[in-house]
Amino acid sequence: MKKYLVQPDMKVKLSEWDPNDTSEFKGGKEQGQAEIEKLNHRLEELQELLFAEHRHKVLIVLQAMDTGGKDGAIRHVFEGVNPQGTRVANFKAPTAEELDHDYLWRVHRQVPAKGELVIFNRSHYEDVLVVRVHNLVPREVWETRFDQINEFEEMLAETGTTILKFYLHIDKDEQKERLQARLDDPNKHWKFRLGDLEERKLWSEYMQAYEDVLKKTSTDAAPWFIVPANHKWYRDLVISTILVNTLEGLKMKYPESAENLAGVVIE
Amino acid sequence: MKKYLVQPDMKVKLSEWDPNDTSEFKGGKEQGQAEIEKLNHRLEELQELLFAEHRHKVLIVLQAMDTGGKDGAIRHVFEGVNPQGTRVANFKAPTAEELDHDYLWRVHRQVPAKGELVIFNRSHYEDVLVVRVHNLVPREVWETRFDQINEFEEMLAETGTTILKFYLHIDKDEQKERLQARLDDPNKHWKFRLGDLEERKLWSEYMQAYEDVLKKTSTDAAPWFIVPANHKWYRDLVISTILVNTLEGLKMKYPESAENLAGVVIE
Repeated sequence: MKKYLVQPDMKVKLSEWDPNDTSEFKGGKEQGQAEIEKLNHRLEELQELLFAEHRHKVLIVLQAMDTGGKDGAIRHVFEGVNPQGTRVANFKAPTAEELDHDYLWRVHRQVPAKGELVIFNRSHYEDVLVVRVHNLVPREVWETRFDQINEFEEMLAETGTTILKFYLHIDKDEQKERLQARLDDPNKHWKFRLGDLEERKLWSEYMQAYEDVLKKTSTDAAPWFIVPANHKWYRDLVISTILVNTLEGLKMKYPESAENLAGVVIE
Repeated sequence: MKKYLVQPDMKVKLSEWDPNDTSEFKGGKEQGQAEIEKLNHRLEELQELLFAEHRHKVLIVLQAMDTGGKDGAIRHVFEGVNPQGTRVANFKAPTAEELDHDYLWRVHRQVPAKGELVIFNRSHYEDVLVVRVHNLVPREVWETRFDQINEFEEMLAETGTTILKFYLHIDKDEQKERLQARLDDPNKHWKFRLGDLEERKLWSEYMQAYEDVLKKTSTDAAPWFIVPANHKWYRDLVISTILVNTLEGLKMKYPESAENLAGVVIE
């Protein structure tokens, strides 16, 4: 899965990244789903270990265009994970109180504690994406944010947080199909917003903003992965694999008790 | 499962409630586990509906003696539920800031929002359990709390919260076995605390405190269920069944869009 990792300072042209790619898994969709199920079980074990060891903190950042599959990835990658010790933080349009603070304030409150796995569904990256595309702050303001974000994430990493950032990469045609599917199914109307169509018109501006994000904020401390996401099963497989491999790499162990349990008798 | 419901003002003698009971399910453990899996899938659908409808709020309170199975119940009942929209709130020993506020302050912050399912792993009931057993506040203080709690929960119910409270009922012998199992397995030492043995000595005081809680705070707005919990599969089955039935009773529907989607064309 190394091919999806964005190297620090690597120039990214998203049009050259194939959202239909499934080349890192030789089976098809069905075998892929069986593989995801296996990874789910392994993730369940690893998350229990993370919780028990109470040492590492794990932060997953998910970013994508509308319909890119953030919600679906959360549902499928984290299926079976114990809700105790796992938390999803949603970053919607900021409240008045949040706007009265710096843009990292509400984000900092939601970072994982020891033993915790936290998924950011959207994140502080919106402050260099939607904020930039809609000119909500001047260029000189959002431009300073890349360094601020890198430094913030570096601090989190230095204080025990393992950070993985995934950009779920779909193309504009795929988005059209997915929006149409929502429109055609009354049970999915609640997910459909007319505003999404306005955002869709800004597709190329968003791609440019994402390219800058990927180039400027993929660091050793907090790397970005570009996940081919037109095929949902492959998207989930890539995320699961990278996550499981990363957690395996932490070499976690069940901790000994801080107390001396030798000779304890339960009456 | 009606037999496990505590009627308002019903006098409860826990020694008369059989923690080994499995009478409401005619199959044994294996069939029971298959049934739990079915309920898990149904719960997954219902939780998605809860999230989509964005109308009801659901609060599950879990209380039990040490090793009573709160963590296990969370793991097994909520397996497969989307972490988006589901949250576990743990109430540990209060912090200095929390102690500077009334005892419901930290609890109120954690109640579910619209569309959310929140599980309280321990709760404000510790303020009439551990606090009472250890004389952390005078009797006249904790005695006033029963009414305060009922009124607080009634307000939550009146403002759209569905509340289910489960007391996981094990006996003292079962606790001994479970503590011993933790002691015998180095991978479980992290769960073992010498302090648990001190608490165990206060078993009968805790039973008395629980009996008062169950009698005084089981209301129509927020009923208590006494779950036989010596058999883990049965414990999970009882909780799943009551939860699924309750959610079914909400008659939730996928909402229509607030916007007029007729004639929308995606370009």
